[in-house]
Amino acid sequence: MAEKTRRPRAETPKGFRDYFGAEVTERKAMLDAIAGVYHRYGFDPLETSAVETVEALGKFLPDVDRPNEGVFAWQEEDQDWLALRYDLTAPLARVAAQYRNDLPSPYRRYAMGPVWRNEKPGPGRFRQFYQCDADTVGSGSVAADAEICAMLADCLEEVGIPRGDYVVKVNNRKVLNGVMEVAGLAGDDKEAERGIVLRAIDKIDRLGEEGVRALLGEGRKDESGDFTKGAGLSDAQAEVVMRFVSASNQIEKRLVEISELPGAMDTKIGVHAYLASFQGSPSGRRVLGGDGPITRYWNRVTTQYLREIVGTSMTGLEGVDELESIADLLEAQGYGPDRIVIDPGVVRGLGYYTGPVYEAELTFQITDEKGRPRNFGSVAGGGRYDGLVKRFTGQDVPATGVSIGVDRLLAALRAKGRSTGDAAGPVVVTVMDRDRMADYMAMVGELRQAGIRAEVYLGNPKNFGNQLKYADKRQSPIAVIQGGNEAAAGKVILKDLILGAKIAESATLEEWKDRPAQVEVPRVEFVAAVRKMLGQ
Amino acid sequence: MAEKTRRPRAETPKGFRDYFGAEVTERKAMLDAIAGVYHRYGFDPLETSAVETVEALGKFLPDVDRPNEGVFAWQEEDQDWLALRYDLTAPLARVAAQYRNDLPSPYRRYAMGPVWRNEKPGPGRFRQFYQCDADTVGSGSVAADAEICAMLADCLEEVGIPRGDYVVKVNNRKVLNGVMEVAGLAGDDKEAERGIVLRAIDKIDRLGEEGVRALLGEGRKDESGDFTKGAGLSDAQAEVVMRFVSASNQIEKRLVEISELPGAMDTKIGVHAYLASFQGSPSGRRVLGGDGPITRYWNRVTTQYLREIVGTSMTGLEGVDELESIADLLEAQGYGPDRIVIDPGVVRGLGYYTGPVYEAELTFQITDEKGRPRNFGSVAGGGRYDGLVKRFTGQDVPATGVSIGVDRLLAALRAKGRSTGDAAGPVVVTVMDRDRMADYMAMVGELRQAGIRAEVYLGNPKNFGNQLKYADKRQSPIAVIQGGNEAAAGKVILKDLILGAKIAESATLEEWKDRPAQVEVPRVEFVAAVRKMLGQ
Repeated sequence: MAEKTRRPRAETPKGFRDYFGAEVTERKAMLDAIAGVYHRYGFDPLETSAVETVEALGKFLPDVDRPNEGVFAWQEEDQDWLALRYDLTAPLARVAAQYRNDLPSPYRRYAMGPVWRNEKPGPGRFRQFYQCDADTVGSGSVAADAEICAMLADCLEEVGIPRGDYVVKVNNRKVLNGVMEVAGLAGDDKEAERGIVLRAIDKIDRLGEEGVRALLGEGRKDESGDFTKGAGLSDAQAEVVMRFVSASNQIEKRLVEISELPGAMDTKIGVHAYLASFQGSPSGRRVLGGDGPITRYWNRVTTQYLREIVGTSMTGLEGVDELESIADLLEAQGYGPDRIVIDPGVVRGLGYYTGPVYEAELTFQITDEKGRPRNFGSVAGGGRYDGLVKRFTGQDVPATGVSIGVDRLLAALRAKGRSTGDAAGPVVVTVMDRDRMADYMAMVGELRQAGIRAEVYLGNPKNFGNQLKYADKRQSPIAVIQGGNEAAAGKVILKDLILGAKIAESATLEEWKDRPAQVEVPRVEFVAAVRKMLGQ
Repeated sequence: MAEKTRRPRAETPKGFRDYFGAEVTERKAMLDAIAGVYHRYGFDPLETSAVETVEALGKFLPDVDRPNEGVFAWQEEDQDWLALRYDLTAPLARVAAQYRNDLPSPYRRYAMGPVWRNEKPGPGRFRQFYQCDADTVGSGSVAADAEICAMLADCLEEVGIPRGDYVVKVNNRKVLNGVMEVAGLAGDDKEAERGIVLRAIDKIDRLGEEGVRALLGEGRKDESGDFTKGAGLSDAQAEVVMRFVSASNQIEKRLVEISELPGAMDTKIGVHAYLASFQGSPSGRRVLGGDGPITRYWNRVTTQYLREIVGTSMTGLEGVDELESIADLLEAQGYGPDRIVIDPGVVRGLGYYTGPVYEAELTFQITDEKGRPRNFGSVAGGGRYDGLVKRFTGQDVPATGVSIGVDRLLAALRAKGRSTGDAAGPVVVTVMDRDRMADYMAMVGELRQAGIRAEVYLGNPKNFGNQLKYADKRQSPIAVIQGGNEAAAGKVILKDLILGAKIAESATLEEWKDRPAQVEVPRVEFVAAVRKMLGQ
């Protein structure tokens, strides 16, 4: 006989969660909408397995015991280490290498599905979440980057973010590398300094220009008195970096100047008005609604400024040229700075980017859990990574791609009230007489045949109140009722539960008096009557 | 400096595979179609994470080292064992227990997604595959089982299996338990004998009645001379079991007798003709096309026979009553034995079924890899399992549900030529002049705006032949070409690649002469011209 053991806990593992009903269908609808755009752009779906060899994933080196730094990994009996994918890019690199003789080149592919991270879970941060990627492998042309930026803008509009409520920002790693060169921070021996500089740049929103400046020099003491050691740059070096850090402000200043030149602006709306309209919304500054002449200057002024700060660095100039090409290619397709802008402020975290990087930001404000307004921020990002496939083949394979954070995007739509989270419940056929289950099954069968979502109540039918409570929990629009009397008379009662709920909420019945919450209809016509009540 | 390491292998892990293009979209279309039916039946989607605690999965007890019997499992740093789900039922049981106060009761839910099995991979057997389940938790009514059988039939037709090409077979575990009782094999001390008897019954297709009979008695020597020890039943005991084993044949015989009674059949098509039409297709025997009167007798004769063989066993009689109710409820909805039949031959493997069990079988023949015709067989199955939630809560929670094997179902549709595996390729805008990339991007942008799937060639444009080869590989219907001359003249060339391929295949150009494979159209009208060439 089996030993008596304690009952297992019915719990989702720590950091994971379950999704119910509308949460599932809304995400599916979003993924379908995005897949539709990806498809139109010629991208083909790819579905790799959730499991990869740790060797192929690569990012994480096996330590003595187990290589699970950030991933869920385990050792097979045959000694191979396997792991759950932590993104969709690593599997793509593996596929691009494995099938390189069979795939079209360039290979445009999209992929959507869960990825797993073995990280400490936090509020709203889960260890399994969806990614939704599109990448072009095998093209070094900036046209591939431009295409993905345009596609990203289309995707956002397709899922319900109107133009003006988002901006796709483009930058180029080479520009930053060029700035580093000019500042005398190139070379393997300067890696430590570059690290400090990069981290300092990334803190501009929090520390402001003065704080960043301090971190570029000797260091900075924060309010608590703690001291952070700086990069130790000379004033001249720091000045070079600061011209990059303050790029957005400098570019705005120049635009204002241009707008004030006589004849420069042939419209009533000037740059001042634009900038003023976005005050207090730092990310919104870069959203230029409509086709004002400012959109003609914006990217030009930006690339001109960047060209100055990268000086004679070949890498830097190449980066600026690429940005200029991207802007031109996008403009040719009608994507101006009202949708996609060059923004030197975009410094994406991942180390593997080698050229253009891009990021989609939602520019509207939402209210956070503490009731404070805040910018919604980034919902997608990507860039060019020319080294990933080379790991496998030794050959250079240029690639560029984007990843859309569908869960964040869904949260944004909900925050804006553009997604209700409600699902249409089924019509519920109640059971008045348990011996006539066959009759109720016949009714529900007819409704389903007619394409109407419907159920028969399958719980214990004894307590009719429970059946109505069930219908309520199911957000059912209509309850179908047939007792013995109705059956004998060839009738069916339809109870309008939506109307019933409204009547219950409302102080006066007056406004509903013309519309009865309950009707009796002939059994033979009840499907048509249900359809009518549903407004179909 | 990093040590030089060998390159990683670009390989899918053993037993896993990648899915490309149409493989992904076809499966998605099938899942969408099935989800549509589940939705119409009032089932709500549920998406649990891929990862569960081993404790919650339950089926696999931890051994000393690791509990990975059949599952992919690993130990977390905090000592918890986690595992990839091996089906969608175990997570449902966990959810039903965890959220029992919040979920509607009964709770109808569907789930679709990959599951993982740590088994030896074989041809066509993978360690990750899709399941597509629907279950009703919290209803002990056989109406819940009947509903799922009807829904299963609807799903098969929805995805393209026509009526007559499938059959849903229903049996009841209680009938078999009743037979065991009558044969004196009830009770805990008879578990070993019951095991041998069950395994013997399961071999009926391979061994025939004589072979099964031998295994019920002393045992059986096979052709190689190996001896399998039998259950050691007496002749009387074995006779009881054999009446169950031969049920299908006995029921057919009775149907033939009934059909020969004067006045019994009021149609020209008799039982003989039905049976003859399915000769050589054992599973097809039970497919009765149309509404012949035989469908009126089939289930009655079957339940009558089963009632006889379970004798006075209360469990057995309860099982037969349930089958009769299921048949009645289905008939009330119009689901006769041409779609769903009672079949005592269905003995589903899983130990946890406690009542009705059901299975969907495709009845047409396909050609196997060796060119031999064979029955396609089972594509879905399920049943009632009243014990799974109890593991967690200690309370009885009746449940019943089905799992559809989408990958097998897709294979069936492909075998019948109902799914081509082809995808519509994009229109390819070629690059004649790399300096005019912005022009080509503008063209592709216009096509996409018009909802036409389109790409610009992003590889090295130097060799134009490579661009056409690329278009071919992409199954592109049209190549768009604009060199300097065309650009100057405001023209675009459209090359009809589908027509071109047909001309290349065909011996004579004669039949195509009225339709040019290449046309020159004005640039301003080229989107309309593309649309026309696509037949839109």
